[in-house]
Amino acid sequence: MLPPAIVHYLQNRRQQHLSSLMELLRFPSIANVQASPDPCVQCAQWLVEYLSKLGLHAELLTPASVGQAPRQAKPNILASAHVRDDAPTLLIYGHYDVQPPDPLELWKSDPFSPQVRDGFLYARGASDDKGQLFAHLMALEAWQQAGGGLPVNVKLLIEGEEEIASPTLEKFMAGHIEQLKADAAVISDSEFFAPGIPSLTTSLRGLAYVEVTFRGPDTDVHSGLHGGAVTNPVNALAALVGALHDAQGRITIDGFYDDVLPPEEAQRRTWAKLPFDEGRYAASLGVETLGGGEKGYSALERRWARPTLDCNGIVAGYTGRGSKTIIPSQALVKISMRLVVNQDPGKVIEGFKRFVAGHTPPGIRSEVKVSGGARPVMLRIDSPSMTAAAEALQEAFGAQTAFIRCGASVPVTEYIQRLLGLDAVLMGWGLPDDGPHSPNEHFALEQLWRGSLAAAAFLGNVGRLGRAVLKIGT
Amino acid sequence: MLPPAIVHYLQNRRQQHLSSLMELLRFPSIANVQASPDPCVQCAQWLVEYLSKLGLHAELLTPASVGQAPRQAKPNILASAHVRDDAPTLLIYGHYDVQPPDPLELWKSDPFSPQVRDGFLYARGASDDKGQLFAHLMALEAWQQAGGGLPVNVKLLIEGEEEIASPTLEKFMAGHIEQLKADAAVISDSEFFAPGIPSLTTSLRGLAYVEVTFRGPDTDVHSGLHGGAVTNPVNALAALVGALHDAQGRITIDGFYDDVLPPEEAQRRTWAKLPFDEGRYAASLGVETLGGGEKGYSALERRWARPTLDCNGIVAGYTGRGSKTIIPSQALVKISMRLVVNQDPGKVIEGFKRFVAGHTPPGIRSEVKVSGGARPVMLRIDSPSMTAAAEALQEAFGAQTAFIRCGASVPVTEYIQRLLGLDAVLMGWGLPDDGPHSPNEHFALEQLWRGSLAAAAFLGNVGRLGRAVLKIGT
Repeated sequence: MLPPAIVHYLQNRRQQHLSSLMELLRFPSIANVQASPDPCVQCAQWLVEYLSKLGLHAELLTPASVGQAPRQAKPNILASAHVRDDAPTLLIYGHYDVQPPDPLELWKSDPFSPQVRDGFLYARGASDDKGQLFAHLMALEAWQQAGGGLPVNVKLLIEGEEEIASPTLEKFMAGHIEQLKADAAVISDSEFFAPGIPSLTTSLRGLAYVEVTFRGPDTDVHSGLHGGAVTNPVNALAALVGALHDAQGRITIDGFYDDVLPPEEAQRRTWAKLPFDEGRYAASLGVETLGGGEKGYSALERRWARPTLDCNGIVAGYTGRGSKTIIPSQALVKISMRLVVNQDPGKVIEGFKRFVAGHTPPGIRSEVKVSGGARPVMLRIDSPSMTAAAEALQEAFGAQTAFIRCGASVPVTEYIQRLLGLDAVLMGWGLPDDGPHSPNEHFALEQLWRGSLAAAAFLGNVGRLGRAVLKIGT
Repeated sequence: MLPPAIVHYLQNRRQQHLSSLMELLRFPSIANVQASPDPCVQCAQWLVEYLSKLGLHAELLTPASVGQAPRQAKPNILASAHVRDDAPTLLIYGHYDVQPPDPLELWKSDPFSPQVRDGFLYARGASDDKGQLFAHLMALEAWQQAGGGLPVNVKLLIEGEEEIASPTLEKFMAGHIEQLKADAAVISDSEFFAPGIPSLTTSLRGLAYVEVTFRGPDTDVHSGLHGGAVTNPVNALAALVGALHDAQGRITIDGFYDDVLPPEEAQRRTWAKLPFDEGRYAASLGVETLGGGEKGYSALERRWARPTLDCNGIVAGYTGRGSKTIIPSQALVKISMRLVVNQDPGKVIEGFKRFVAGHTPPGIRSEVKVSGGARPVMLRIDSPSMTAAAEALQEAFGAQTAFIRCGASVPVTEYIQRLLGLDAVLMGWGLPDDGPHSPNEHFALEQLWRGSLAAAAFLGNVGRLGRAVLKIGT
C-alpha cells in the first residue's frame, strides 16, 4: 500500500506536474530531423535540468555518429539517485524522441502546442512516450518530498532514438554496463489492453527487415516492343512475394517455423477470456473483416504468438496518373518479418535469402539488403518484479492486472535482458486509442494521475522485496 | 522506277531539307505539357505553313478538351492536294508530338537543338516521328518540282497526341471521315527489322491497360501491433499478380487465349530465317538472358504473335531509404496486356475483372480502372498497296523487303481499318537502335535520304495502280 502522504502529494501537485509535462511536450524532438539548434538536444537538456532539480545525478551522453553518410546521433540521458548500498536498484527506461507529426493538416491543434480538451492532453509524444515517462518522474518526486526519501536506488535511461528503431542504443548500453546495472527494470512505453484493464506485456515479437531488389533490363523498355521476350522485374517480384505465403496463410520459407515456440494452452485460454471483439477491432482499423496471418488462430494469437511476413512498401516503374507502357528496369519491396520466441533473426534472414535465390527467374539479378533485426522477447510472468508491478497497477487503477503480449518490438527490452541479465517489466499506461503514431495523439489525464500512483507503488513494492528476492527472480 | 529527275532533285536539295527538318525538330512539342505559348501549337503552325508552301491545302484542327479535369487537346493537321478525280487518293499519317526528353542529363546534345554527328541527326523526334514524316514531305515536293506534278491525290493526317496514346484521335477521325477518305494509306512510324533490311509491318498487337487498387486499413497501420490480424494489401496484390501467370509463363485468366489466332506455319518459318540473334538482343536490353512470355515460343514469336501481361508500375507504402514497419493502407498496380488477333480488349478486360474479383481476399476492397485499349491489327500481306510499298522500299534501299510484325500498338492503324475501311501500309524507316523514347534519339541521314526516295517511289507506284486495282485489294 502506498503511504497516504504520497497519494495526497500527487493529488495536490497535479497543476504543476501538468504544466511541466506540457513544457516537455513543446520540443519537436523528432529523431530523424537534423536542425540547429537541435530540438532533441534542447529537450534532453530540459530533462537533465528537471532530473537534477529532483536531486538526481543526470547527464547527457551523445553516441558516436552513425552510418555511411554520418548522421549525428541524438543524446541519451543517464540519471541516478543512490539511497543506500543494500537497497535494490531499479532501472527506469523511457524515450524523449517522438514520431514525426505528419500529416499536419489532420491535427485539430498544433502537435507541439499541448492542449487539454475533455480530460485528454493532446500533443505529439503525449502518450508515446513523454507522458508515460513523466509519470515516473512524478513518482520519484512524491517519494522524495512526501515519502521520506526514495525506497530504492534509481537509475534512468532516457533514449533519443526509439522512434527510428534505436540504431545506436545497443552499442551505447554495452558501453555503459556499470551505469545501467540494476536489480529490476521497468519500461513504460506500452498500452493497457483496454480502458480499465491495467496490463503487463510479457512478450514482444522480434523483427527481421529486408529489402529485395529485382533488376532486369538496364533501362525501362517498351512493353509492346519487348513484352514477352524479357523478364519483367515487377511480374517476377510480385510472383516471389505471392509465393511467400501458402493458401493457409503460412509462410513458405523452408524451416521458417522450426524454432517457433507455441504459447502454452493455459495462456491461450487466458487470452480467449480477454474482452476482445474482432468486429470492433476490424472497424477501428477501417476494414470490413480481419484477415492475414495463419488460418486456425484467433486474431490475438496471430498478433501475439505467431510470426508474420508483411510487405511494408513496394515500388517500380510508372506510378503517376494515366498509363505508361513500360517494362520497368527494376522493382523493390520492403518486407518485415515479425518473429516469436524462439526464432532467431539471423537464421530467418538466411532462409529468406535462400528463398529469394530460388525464386529469381532467368533474366533477373536479385539483391537482398538486410536493414534491421530484433530478437523476440519472452518475460517470466511469475518473477518478483512482475508481481510487484501487477500489484502496483492493481492498487493504482483498482482493477486486476492482465498479462498480455504485444506484436511489436521494443529493442531495449531485449538489450536489457541480454546485456544486463534482467527481465524488465513492461508496464505502460497508454490506452489503445491514444494514436501514438497518428495525428491528434493524446494521453488521458486520468492515466497520467493513476500512472504516477502505479509508478510510486512499484517503487515501494520493489523496495520491500529487497535485492535478494529480486535476484531469485532473474 | 522513279523518274531520274526526282532522284536528282532530292539529291540536290539535301542541305535545304535537312535544315527544314532541323527547324521542325526545335519545337519541344510534348503532348502532355501545358505551356503558353504552346510548343505543340507552334509546331503544328510551322507544319501548316510548310505544307501550304508545298501547295497543299492545310489546316490546324483542335479537338475538344478531354477528361474530367479538362485538358486542352493538341491540334491535328489535315492537308490535301487534289490532282484529278480519277487518280487514286493516298492518305499519309505521321505525328508531330514527341516523347518527353527525360532524363535530360543523359543527352550528349540538347534534345531540341538538333545536331548532326557522324551521319546521324540527334534530336528528340528525329526518328519518332518528325524525321520519318518529313521524308514524305520531301517526296511530295520532289514530284511537284521535278516529276511533273503529284501522281496521286494526297491527304495528310498529322497527329499531335500519338505519344500519349491518341486519346482524341478516334473521335476526331470519326468526325472527319470525308476529309480522310482515301484509296490507300501509309503510316511511317515504324522500324526496319535491322539496318539494310527494309521492312513492312503486317501486324500490331492490341492493348488492354488496367489499374488495380487494393484497399485495406483506412490508414497505414503498425506492422508489429497489427501484423497477422489484418490483410496486407501489398501481400494480397502481389499474390494476385503472381497468380496471373503459371509456371509455363501462360496467363491464367479464364478464357484469355480462347480467341488467339496462331500465326500460320509459313509465317513462322519466314521469321525463323530473319537474322535475329537472341543473345545480342538480350545484350542490347542489358539482360544476361531473355525470359518472360510463354515457354515453347521463340523470342520473336513471343513479341509478335503471343499476348502478354506486364506490370508497368506498382506502388504502396513506404519506399524511401531505410525501414518503416507499416501495413500500407493500399496498393496499386498498372498492368498492360498486349493482345494479338483475334482478341478483343473489352472481352479481355471483363475476364481480368473477374480474375481480380476472384483473387480479392477478405479484408480488401478492390477496384479495377480501365485506362486504355486498342484492338490488335492484322494487315493483308498481298494487297496491291502492300506490294507497291514493298517494291518502293526495294528500289530505294536496294534490298528485299521483309514482312515483319511489331509487338507494340499504333492505334491509328486500327482506326484507319475500321473507320475508313483501309489496310494502311506500315512503312517506316527508323532503325532498331534509334532510341526513339530514350536519351540521344537519332535518325540516320541515309535513312532520311533513302526514305524520301521510297516515299516518292510509293507515290508513283500507287498512282500507276489506279483506283480500281486498289479497291480490289481492300
